[in-house]
Amino acid sequence: MSPLDPKRTVQDLKDLRALTGNDDGAWRVAWTDTWLEARRFMREKTDALGLETHMDAAGNVWSTLKGESDVELLIGGHIDSVPGGGWLDGCLNVLAGLEVIRRIKEQYGGRPPVTVRLVDWADEEGARFGRSLLGSSAAGNTLVPDEERHRKDADGVLLVDALKRCGVDLDRMNEAHAELANAGAYLELHIEQGPVLLDMDLPLGVVLGTYGVERHAFKFVGQAAHSGSTPMNRRRDAFLAAGKMSQEIYDLTDALGGVSTIGSCVTRPGIVTSVVAECDITLDQRHLDRQALTRMYQWAVDASQRFAEEGGVEASTEVIWRIDPMPFHPELIDMADEAVKGATGGLSHRLPSGPLHDAAEVARAGIPTVMLFTQSLHGISHNKIEDTKEEHIEMSVVALDALAEKTMAWLLAGGASR
Amino acid sequence: MSPLDPKRTVQDLKDLRALTGNDDGAWRVAWTDTWLEARRFMREKTDALGLETHMDAAGNVWSTLKGESDVELLIGGHIDSVPGGGWLDGCLNVLAGLEVIRRIKEQYGGRPPVTVRLVDWADEEGARFGRSLLGSSAAGNTLVPDEERHRKDADGVLLVDALKRCGVDLDRMNEAHAELANAGAYLELHIEQGPVLLDMDLPLGVVLGTYGVERHAFKFVGQAAHSGSTPMNRRRDAFLAAGKMSQEIYDLTDALGGVSTIGSCVTRPGIVTSVVAECDITLDQRHLDRQALTRMYQWAVDASQRFAEEGGVEASTEVIWRIDPMPFHPELIDMADEAVKGATGGLSHRLPSGPLHDAAEVARAGIPTVMLFTQSLHGISHNKIEDTKEEHIEMSVVALDALAEKTMAWLLAGGASR
Repeated sequence: MSPLDPKRTVQDLKDLRALTGNDDGAWRVAWTDTWLEARRFMREKTDALGLETHMDAAGNVWSTLKGESDVELLIGGHIDSVPGGGWLDGCLNVLAGLEVIRRIKEQYGGRPPVTVRLVDWADEEGARFGRSLLGSSAAGNTLVPDEERHRKDADGVLLVDALKRCGVDLDRMNEAHAELANAGAYLELHIEQGPVLLDMDLPLGVVLGTYGVERHAFKFVGQAAHSGSTPMNRRRDAFLAAGKMSQEIYDLTDALGGVSTIGSCVTRPGIVTSVVAECDITLDQRHLDRQALTRMYQWAVDASQRFAEEGGVEASTEVIWRIDPMPFHPELIDMADEAVKGATGGLSHRLPSGPLHDAAEVARAGIPTVMLFTQSLHGISHNKIEDTKEEHIEMSVVALDALAEKTMAWLLAGGASR
Repeated sequence: MSPLDPKRTVQDLKDLRALTGNDDGAWRVAWTDTWLEARRFMREKTDALGLETHMDAAGNVWSTLKGESDVELLIGGHIDSVPGGGWLDGCLNVLAGLEVIRRIKEQYGGRPPVTVRLVDWADEEGARFGRSLLGSSAAGNTLVPDEERHRKDADGVLLVDALKRCGVDLDRMNEAHAELANAGAYLELHIEQGPVLLDMDLPLGVVLGTYGVERHAFKFVGQAAHSGSTPMNRRRDAFLAAGKMSQEIYDLTDALGGVSTIGSCVTRPGIVTSVVAECDITLDQRHLDRQALTRMYQWAVDASQRFAEEGGVEASTEVIWRIDPMPFHPELIDMADEAVKGATGGLSHRLPSGPLHDAAEVARAGIPTVMLFTQSLHGISHNKIEDTKEEHIEMSVVALDALAEKTMAWLLAGGASR
């Protein structure tokens, strides 16, 4: 009999939901009392398992099972949620990882061949202060405290004060980087949050990496003109040019892959009796491949210029945000694929992650990384209706456990430095 | 020597501009002191010419030169302007009409064959209270006092109180209808306010009628979805459907004529990281032909439904406002064409009017009507930069005068009842 008990993970998740959620969803928003309550729930479990647990300078909580080697296998997730979020987003890994370490401890008589650590990243969601991946970016040593110092929540509470209340000093957060000193590999199990596995009727998938993002504001400037007295061929219609972009972003993803989203359109003067003088749209483009991402953006810029010229308007763009794609480790991806197939009876699928995850920050720090996705019902997250079939949750625990075992063997054989 | 002196009209217009305008444009907003000042300026001139002048129940000012016949030739304009408006919008006709009556009086020894009346319509612009064509609609007996009673200006002043201050009782305004009892024809000279004549390098044009308007709100409802995790083929993107309308309204006017304008686009949730769940656009469509106008609207509805189906979203429409086209009188149009050609040395062009005019209300009341347009520099109005070349103003006075003469002959021959 395997000592791994995936049903226990399902029960743990339900217990956490009962403790920190209600009919409106999960409320484990980072730096709030409910989040601290969730962390106490976890602390009881890691203490009961006899792990060494401490919080680092960034507020991340580390629970360590010391092994024969100092080389560390990291398993990470985040127990924080968005307000009214789903019951599995983030915490699935924290509790699945706990079960995996429980199994490893039992199987290896308390001392596995490599050191195994569970990390609960602080404030992955950025839901309260608008800064995602806060704790993991500090561990990755990429956090710039001065860029975060001004942040306030909706009630005017400063991020720095909310952190201080939880024992975290913004200016010292990057000291958490020391926690990664001996890391040999990082594994993260997460719900998909999208509909890909659902549409393919697959329980689990292997994540190839996180999309890079090119996020830009496109502005079209034409001329206001009376809707009655201005012939069509005399118009410099900013909405005509902007509207043409709506189909173009589907054409360019057909050709180049990835995703492109026009999320906002604002028209000025925006009255029924005037041709649109100015139209602003936002374009969010994501791709796993840096070159393809650059081509996507350039395609959009070229199209916007072409549409502008066709309609006698001016087009310009301004960067809102951009981040490079973060591909995961090819050998870990192969091992994850084997682990998924083992858990599902041969079914697997490799897919990129559109949303960012803490795993991107760990990978950026040079740690070989891979993620597993489990199917999301409705293909949705950040919503109280987010859900996953219990049998899929159980399969995901089995797959994470198998991947952890394979990764320990890989680390013993030299890991990325082989 | 003709007694007509078009240069005098240009000077009168300049005098009025000096009296009621400044560097920011014309300020003859109806029911204000500056408007009353402009009307006093006119009253001095009509009194000096020996015309019988009175204000009707709707605030319209009538100046009459009694003729041999009770049948009346009406020449009308409006001395009111929008705030910071152009110096010629409306008042060109009032002063050109004065010059024409001056010529007629002189030529016919004070008693022309038909009665000639100059009317200065009250509140054509609706700039202060948002109700255009107020005085002319009362004369047309289509004003519904209860629909206007609630109106207030930006300072909270009630329309009814502003009217009362100028001697007008809202509930009695439609009594002005009596003024049209003997009307045989109505002529109105106006600046074009658009770029058609400018583009054709023509000084004058003949107006075929005023466009009908179909003004509707189109709503597209899809589903919000994460911009990173939602594959393109899984999206129900309200902006994709709405954006496709931008080109479609140009295609449908290519096929059907008229003008179509998407003036406003609003997206919800309207954030950079979400597919658009709801998108509202306004569509303003205008055409001189009722059937064509209906087809334009139906084309847009059909297209919206097609785009909605293509993208898995729902489309619906709601009426904002609609008005029927008002074609002018065909015989008067032909006479106007001759008059224009005579004034310009053979150049004329027939065009519809996108903006509404008092002439539409008079025509709706069954009075044979036609308008002349004179070229607008910049193709623009309702703006301090609105302007027309002095030589074109002079030509327009000549054309209006010739048209008045032809129309008198037409009325003597039986007019519309021949």
